[in-house]
Amino acid sequence: MPWKPSDFQITSLGEARYNAADFESIRNVTSDTLFVNDRERVPHQVVFQEGDPLDTSRAFEKAGPREKLFFNPGEVNAAIVTCGGICPGLNDVIRALFMELHYIYQARSVLGFRYGLRGFDPASGLDPIELNHERVSDIQAYGGTMLGTSRGHVAADVVVDRLQAHNIQILFVIGGDGTQRAAHTIWEEVARRGAKIAIIGVPKTIDNDINYVYKTFGFDTAVSFARDALEAAHIEAKGNPKGIGLVKVMGRDSGFIAAYATLASITVNYTLIPEMDFHLDGNHGLLNHLEKRMADKNHAVIVVAEGAGQHLLPESERERDASGNIKHGDIGVYLKQRINQHFKQKGLEVNLKYFDPSYMLRSLPANAQDRIFAANLARFAVHAAMAGKTDMMIGRRFNQFIHVPIPIAVANRKKITLDSELWMAVLQATGQPAKMF
Amino acid sequence: MPWKPSDFQITSLGEARYNAADFESIRNVTSDTLFVNDRERVPHQVVFQEGDPLDTSRAFEKAGPREKLFFNPGEVNAAIVTCGGICPGLNDVIRALFMELHYIYQARSVLGFRYGLRGFDPASGLDPIELNHERVSDIQAYGGTMLGTSRGHVAADVVVDRLQAHNIQILFVIGGDGTQRAAHTIWEEVARRGAKIAIIGVPKTIDNDINYVYKTFGFDTAVSFARDALEAAHIEAKGNPKGIGLVKVMGRDSGFIAAYATLASITVNYTLIPEMDFHLDGNHGLLNHLEKRMADKNHAVIVVAEGAGQHLLPESERERDASGNIKHGDIGVYLKQRINQHFKQKGLEVNLKYFDPSYMLRSLPANAQDRIFAANLARFAVHAAMAGKTDMMIGRRFNQFIHVPIPIAVANRKKITLDSELWMAVLQATGQPAKMF
Amino acid sequence: MPWKPSDFQITSLGEARYNAADFESIRNVTSDTLFVNDRERVPHQVVFQEGDPLDTSRAFEKAGPREKLFFNPGEVNAAIVTCGGICPGLNDVIRALFMELHYIYQARSVLGFRYGLRGFDPASGLDPIELNHERVSDIQAYGGTMLGTSRGHVAADVVVDRLQAHNIQILFVIGGDGTQRAAHTIWEEVARRGAKIAIIGVPKTIDNDINYVYKTFGFDTAVSFARDALEAAHIEAKGNPKGIGLVKVMGRDSGFIAAYATLASITVNYTLIPEMDFHLDGNHGLLNHLEKRMADKNHAVIVVAEGAGQHLLPESERERDASGNIKHGDIGVYLKQRINQHFKQKGLEVNLKYFDPSYMLRSLPANAQDRIFAANLARFAVHAAMAGKTDMMIGRRFNQFIHVPIPIAVANRKKITLDSELWMAVLQATGQPAKMF
Amino acid sequence: MPWKPSDFQITSLGEARYNAADFESIRNVTSDTLFVNDRERVPHQVVFQEGDPLDTSRAFEKAGPREKLFFNPGEVNAAIVTCGGICPGLNDVIRALFMELHYIYQARSVLGFRYGLRGFDPASGLDPIELNHERVSDIQAYGGTMLGTSRGHVAADVVVDRLQAHNIQILFVIGGDGTQRAAHTIWEEVARRGAKIAIIGVPKTIDNDINYVYKTFGFDTAVSFARDALEAAHIEAKGNPKGIGLVKVMGRDSGFIAAYATLASITVNYTLIPEMDFHLDGNHGLLNHLEKRMADKNHAVIVVAEGAGQHLLPESERERDASGNIKHGDIGVYLKQRINQHFKQKGLEVNLKYFDPSYMLRSLPANAQDRIFAANLARFAVHAAMAGKTDMMIGRRFNQFIHVPIPIAVANRKKITLDSELWMAVLQATGQPAKMF
Repeated sequence: MPWKPSDFQITSLGEARYNAADFESIRNVTSDTLFVNDRERVPHQVVFQEGDPLDTSRAFEKAGPREKLFFNPGEVNAAIVTCGGICPGLNDVIRALFMELHYIYQARSVLGFRYGLRGFDPASGLDPIELNHERVSDIQAYGGTMLGTSRGHVAADVVVDRLQAHNIQILFVIGGDGTQRAAHTIWEEVARRGAKIAIIGVPKTIDNDINYVYKTFGFDTAVSFARDALEAAHIEAKGNPKGIGLVKVMGRDSGFIAAYATLASITVNYTLIPEMDFHLDGNHGLLNHLEKRMADKNHAVIVVAEGAGQHLLPESERERDASGNIKHGDIGVYLKQRINQHFKQKGLEVNLKYFDPSYMLRSLPANAQDRIFAANLARFAVHAAMAGKTDMMIGRRFNQFIHVPIPIAVANRKKITLDSELWMAVLQATGQPAKMF
Repeated sequence: MPWKPSDFQITSLGEARYNAADFESIRNVTSDTLFVNDRERVPHQVVFQEGDPLDTSRAFEKAGPREKLFFNPGEVNAAIVTCGGICPGLNDVIRALFMELHYIYQARSVLGFRYGLRGFDPASGLDPIELNHERVSDIQAYGGTMLGTSRGHVAADVVVDRLQAHNIQILFVIGGDGTQRAAHTIWEEVARRGAKIAIIGVPKTIDNDINYVYKTFGFDTAVSFARDALEAAHIEAKGNPKGIGLVKVMGRDSGFIAAYATLASITVNYTLIPEMDFHLDGNHGLLNHLEKRMADKNHAVIVVAEGAGQHLLPESERERDASGNIKHGDIGVYLKQRINQHFKQKGLEVNLKYFDPSYMLRSLPANAQDRIFAANLARFAVHAAMAGKTDMMIGRRFNQFIHVPIPIAVANRKKITLDSELWMAVLQATGQPAKMF
Repeated sequence: MPWKPSDFQITSLGEARYNAADFESIRNVTSDTLFVNDRERVPHQVVFQEGDPLDTSRAFEKAGPREKLFFNPGEVNAAIVTCGGICPGLNDVIRALFMELHYIYQARSVLGFRYGLRGFDPASGLDPIELNHERVSDIQAYGGTMLGTSRGHVAADVVVDRLQAHNIQILFVIGGDGTQRAAHTIWEEVARRGAKIAIIGVPKTIDNDINYVYKTFGFDTAVSFARDALEAAHIEAKGNPKGIGLVKVMGRDSGFIAAYATLASITVNYTLIPEMDFHLDGNHGLLNHLEKRMADKNHAVIVVAEGAGQHLLPESERERDASGNIKHGDIGVYLKQRINQHFKQKGLEVNLKYFDPSYMLRSLPANAQDRIFAANLARFAVHAAMAGKTDMMIGRRFNQFIHVPIPIAVANRKKITLDSELWMAVLQATGQPAKMF
Repeated sequence: MPWKPSDFQITSLGEARYNAADFESIRNVTSDTLFVNDRERVPHQVVFQEGDPLDTSRAFEKAGPREKLFFNPGEVNAAIVTCGGICPGLNDVIRALFMELHYIYQARSVLGFRYGLRGFDPASGLDPIELNHERVSDIQAYGGTMLGTSRGHVAADVVVDRLQAHNIQILFVIGGDGTQRAAHTIWEEVARRGAKIAIIGVPKTIDNDINYVYKTFGFDTAVSFARDALEAAHIEAKGNPKGIGLVKVMGRDSGFIAAYATLASITVNYTLIPEMDFHLDGNHGLLNHLEKRMADKNHAVIVVAEGAGQHLLPESERERDASGNIKHGDIGVYLKQRINQHFKQKGLEVNLKYFDPSYMLRSLPANAQDRIFAANLARFAVHAAMAGKTDMMIGRRFNQFIHVPIPIAVANRKKITLDSELWMAVLQATGQPAKMF
C-alpha cells in the first residue's frame, strides 16, 4: 500500500500545555526517561539488506505517556463504548481504561455507553453507566463486555450530539475495522463542529485481521480453545474406524485462528482458509487427496475457517442478508455433506464427526497473555488521548506500542500471505499439498 | 419393574476352587476383612418408613475380591473391547483392567480387540493388540480409546469363535445398553457351547442412562464441559441486546447432561429434556413464556437435550436411517428457527446465538473424579471375572459396587423422573414453569 | 460407635402448622410425591448378608421439603455464617441458601454475618450484610467466601444475644466439626432460653473428614488440583536423573486428599497418610524401600498428607501453639531432609523436588460437581429449617440427603480405614508395601 | 553494551553449495520469496527520532530457510540435548526439530542425548536414543523433556569426542545462558579440531532472562500458572480477617514472572523483584507501608521473586553450595517471618498465608502460544544449521526470528529496567510506591 510518509501524521486537537509532572499521581508511575516525545518513531518495515539503508521515511509515532498534556486531566469526562462481536479481554480494556483515567490521570468521570453505538442514540432509550471502582474491579473474571455491544451503526451527528450533551472530552471506541471506520466518521463530525473531543480507537477483532496490530487481544484465548476443538476432532478421528474430524472455526476474511490453532495442536492434516484457493473435485482436489490419505492412514483432521471456500458453495447454500447481499454460506456443513457423499459414492467407509465450536471461542475470559495486552492497549490509549491525539488507534508493531491513523488502520484487512513464514509453518505442520486444485 | 428376588442371582461358571490368598500379589493388596462373600447384599431400595421393615427381598450381590477364584489367575487370557461412542475415561478402564489383571492377578495375557465388536470378525481384517505396561502406561492422558470403537454388531457365534480361537477365558465388554445386550447374547452362545468364558460388562454411556449405575464414568467430565458452553451462552446473551443463548447438548433419551449442567452453571432459564412434554405455541408454550421473559429481563439461556421435543419436529425435519426408521431430528436447529421466526413475526428484536458443543463433551480425557471411578469399575470387574461370575455388569448403588445381571441392567434406560429431587432442583435453578403446554 | 436408635431422633422446635402447599412459590417446585414425611428413613448401614435381615433400627431421617412448616416462611429472618478455612463451594452454599430462602420460601430477609463466629460479637465491630439477588448472583465465579471466615470461637450467649437482637429465626452454620460443635452449643443456649431459633449445620471440610457426608463439597475440586501437583512432581521426577518428586497435601487427621489424588493421578509410588504407621529407617522402612526403587526405576513420586508421620518428627520440629500444645510439625520438609540425607550418606545421587501446593487447593471456585452438591446441601438445609428442625446437620449417605443430629456428626472424625476398598485401591495404584515398618 | 557491528557476524562452517530447491520435500514448503539471503538484517534497535536516521550499523542476521545448504541434508546425523531445569515446551522443541529434520530435510538420523550434557560422557553410562516418528509424535502432551535434563557440565573435548564417534554434523543445544556458554566452548573445541559440526543454540529459560529473545517458550505457561497462585492468594487474603497472601515465584536474577503475573492477575499490591532495591524497615520500608494498607484495606497480596531482596537476608538464612558460594536464601520464608513478627510486635492481627508454587510453574505442558513459538524456534534452528551456521542461537526480536552469535547472547542476562514500560505498568497495577527505602 503506497502510503506517503505524511499519511502517518497523527491528528492533534491542539497545543498540549499542561505538564504531566505537575500531577503527583502521574509522576508516581512515570519518570523522565519514560516520557515519549512526539518525534519518536517506529519504522513501517524492519527488515533490510545489509549495505542498503533501511527505509524509515514511513514510520509510526511511538505511543507512551507525554510530558505535555492537552487536557487538564482532572477536568476530563471520558466515555467508553464497545462495538461488534464479543471477544476475550473486552472487560480488561474497560477496566484498565477506567483505572488509568481514574487513578493515574484522575479524570472527573468515566461513562460507559451501552450496547455499542446504539447506546448514543436517544431513541434506544439506553443511558450510559457511570463507572466506578466497585463496578469494574472484578469484571475481568467474566467474558463478554459489561457494557454490552452490538453491530448497529448510528449517524455520526447523533453520536456527537450525545457526546456534547454529556460534556465528553475523550471517547474510546473499542472495535474492529467497521467500528474504527465509524470512529473516523465521528471524528470528522467532531472536526466539522470544531469541537475538542479526542476519538481514540482500541482495536478488537477475534479474527486478528486488523493491520498494524501484531496480534489482537482475545486471539490467543480463542486459539487455545480452537486447539482444544482440534484435539477433540483428532480423538474422534482416531477412535472410530475411518474417522474424520472436521472443525469449523471463526475467520470470515482471514484464516489466522485456523492457522495458529493448527500450529498449536499439531494434529491437523488439512487447514483451509479464506486466503487460499482450493477445489474439492479433480485429481488435485481435496476429496481425492483425502481419499488417498484415508486409505493410507485411516483417519484425518480438517480445520476450515468459516470464510474459506466460498467460491465452492452453490448459490443455494448462501444466505442473503436484509439488503440482498450474499452472506457467507456454511462451508463447514457443505464440506461435511460433500465428504460423506464422496466416500459413499466410492463405497468407502467413513465416520465423519463435525465440530462447530464457533461462539465458545469468543465468550471466554481472557487468558494471562491477552489480559496483559488488553490492559496495555488501554493504558496507551489514555496517554494518547490526554496528549490531545485524535482520529487514531493504538497499534503494536515490532513489540512497540504505536499510534496508527485510523484511515491507515482500516484501509484493508490483515490477511495471511501464502508465501509467509506462517503459512510455510502450516504446510509443514499439516503435510498438506501447497496446491489443491 | 417387578423383578423377582431370583432375578438378581448372578450366573456362575462353576465352583470357585482356587484360594486367592495363595497368590502373593493378591494377598499384598487385600486382607481377610476385605474379601467379600457371595452372600453379601445391597438392597434394591434404601428408603423406608419408620416402623415398617425395609424390603430387602430384592437385592444385589456386593462386588469385591473373592476368597475363592474360579480361574487359576496365571492361566487366564483376558480380552477387552470398547463399543459405541467414545467417552472420557475409556482409556482409564482399559489401563486399570490391564494393571489389575497383570500385576494383581498376574494373568497370562491381555488382548485388546480393535474398533468394537467388529474387531472379532475375521472379515474386518483387524487383529487384536497384546497389551503391556508400556502400551497402556500413559494412555489416560488422552481422550477416546486406544483400542478404537464402533457401533456395529457382529453375530455372537463369530465373537465366540474368535474368543475360543485365542483361548480367552474372560471378556470385558465396555459399552452402553446396546452393547450390554450384545454381551448377553455372546454369553448365551458361550453357554450354549458349554464353554467356560466369563462375560463381564463395564457400563459406559455419556448420557448416564444405564440403570443401577449411580453415575457413569465420563459423565462428570461431560457436564463440566457442558457447563462451560452454558456459561458461554450466558455471556453472549448478556453481551448483546435482546440476546438469547441456545445450547444443544447430548442426551438422546434422557436429559441428565442438560439437567446437571444446568445445576452446575446456574445461568439457565429453560432446560428442555426428552422426558418432558412441552409445546412451543400457545399461551403456556415456550415461545410465549420466552417473549415475556425477554421483555422483562432482556436475555435468556436455553439448554436443550438432543432428544427433547421430537414430537414438535415436522416429519420433514427428521432423518431416516438405513432401515427407514426415523432418526432424531435436530431440535436445536429447529428451536433456533422457530424462536427467530416468532420474534420476527412480532416485530421484536432478538439476537440468538446457537451453540452445539456436541462431540467436544466426549473426547476429553477424564477428570479426576471420572478417572477414579472408571478405574474402580475395572478393578471390581476383574474381581468378579476371576471368581467365575458371568453375564453380569459392574454397577454402583448406594455407594457400593455391585453385580448386576445384564438382563436387569438393560431392561430399560434410566431417565429423569419429573417428580424427582433432581428435576425439582432444575425447576428451582431455572425458574421455568413446571408445565409448558 | 454404639449409637442407640433414639440418638438419631431430630430435635424439633415444635409442631409444624403451616401448609407448604399454601405458598405458590413452594408449590411450583414441589409436588405431592416430593414431600418427605418425618417417618422416612435411611438406614445406618446398607450391606447385609442374604438370609439375615438388614438392621434398620439405627436410621437417619430423610431430608427434603416437608408438607407442614413450623415457620410462616414470609416472616422468617435467616442468618448465614461461614467458619474455619475457606473451601471451594462456600459461595455456592451462600448463594443457594439465599435463592431458596428468597425465591422459594420468600423469607423476609437473609443476613450474612462476617468473618465467622466473631461476626456475632459486637466487640468485633462487624455488622452483618443484608443479602440480595445482586450481591449473590455472581459469587460462584470466585473461590473463598463473600462473607469472610475465621477460626475463632465466641461464647454462645453472645451469639444468641445477637440473633435475638436481629430477630433471627434460622441460623445456618457452615463449617467443619469444630464449628458444628459450636453450633450445638449455640443450640443449647437457644434451648435454655426457650427461644424458637433453628440451628442448622452445613458440613464443610476440605479434608472430607466429617462423618455421614459421603464427600464434602470442595473436596473434588481440591483433589483435581492435588492431582495436577502430583503430575508436576512426576514430570520433575522423570525429567531429572534420579529424580524424586515429593508433594505435601492437606489432611491433618485423615488422608482422603492424598488417597484420592493418588488414584486420580496414577503416578504415585508412595502415599503416606495420618491413619497409617510407617517408619523411615530399618529394613522395611520407607528409605530403604525408596533406595531400592531408585536403583531399579530411577525415579519416584511420594505424596504425604500434612498430618502423616507426626510420630517421626523430633520434638524440635514441632511447633507449639499459644496454649503450649504441640502443633503439627512439617512432615514434608522433614521427609525432604531425611531423604536427601539418606542418599547423600549412601553416596547415591538424588534430585528431590519438593512441592507444597497447600492453600491453592482450597481457594479455587468449585468445579461442576462440587457446585451442584454445595447448592443441594443448601436447599435441603432450608427445607429442614423451615420445618422446624434444629441442632442438626445436612448429611449425605447412600445417595440420600439426610438429617444428622449434630452430636452424632461431630462425635469423631471420618478417617481412612486401612482395610477399606479405598486403601486397597491405593495400594494397587502405588504398588507400595502394605507395611513400612 | 558496546557491541561492534562485526560482533554480529555469524560464524559459518564454509561455503554452502547444495541447492535447497533440489530437494522436493524442502521445495514443497518453501518458495522463492521465502528463502532468506544472508544479507537480510534486523536492526539492534527500532525506535528512532524523526529526522535522525535509525542506526542500523549493528544488526542481526535474519533467520529462515536458505537457498544454499552447507550440508547435503540426506547425509546429516543430528543430535539434540536438553539442559538445565525443565520448562514447558521442551518436548515441542524436540518434536519440531525431529519433524523438520526428518520430513523436510530428510536427515539420515536424529539422536537424542540423555539427561543434559552428562549424556555425552561415556562415564555416565547413558546411551542416546534414536528418535523416530512414533517416539516423538505424542510427547507434546506432557511437560518436561523426553530426553531428561540435568545441570552438570562436561568437558568440551568429551562432548566433541562423542559427537565425532557418532558422526554427528549438527548439535542442537537447548538451554539457558549457562548452557549456551557451554555450547560456545564446545564450538571452540570443534573449531580447534577443524571439524565441520554446527553448534546451534535454542534458548530456554523459564525466567525469560535471555537477551534477544523477546519471550522464551514456556514463559507464558508459567505466567498463567503464577497468575492462578496470585488469585488464590487474593482469595485467601480477602476471605480471612486481616488476610495477607504472600506468593514466591521463580526468578533468580530477573523478575519477569513476578511482573507479568502481576499484570495478568490485577490483584497484587506489592511486587518484589531482584532488580529493585527495597527495605523492610524504616518509614518508607515495606513493613510500614503494609501496616498502613492493612489498617486501611484489611487485606494485601504480595508477590516476591525468589532472587529479590537477597541483601536483606541475614547471613544465617543463606545456604552455601558445595563450593562454599552463597546460594540464594529463601526470601519468601524470611518475608513471612518478618511480616508476622512485625504485626505481632505491634499487637495487630494478621493472617498470612504463604504460597510457594515453584516447580509447578515449569512442569506443565506448553500452552497454545508457547507450543507455536517453541516449534518455530526449532524450525529456524534447523534452517540455520543446514546452511552451515554455527556458534549461534536462534533469537526473536521485533517479531523476526534472528541469528544471534552466542557470545552476544550470553554476555549478560536480560533484566527488568526500572524505568521501562513494563515496570511502569506494574507500578500502576499494584499502586505500590516506586521506592520502598
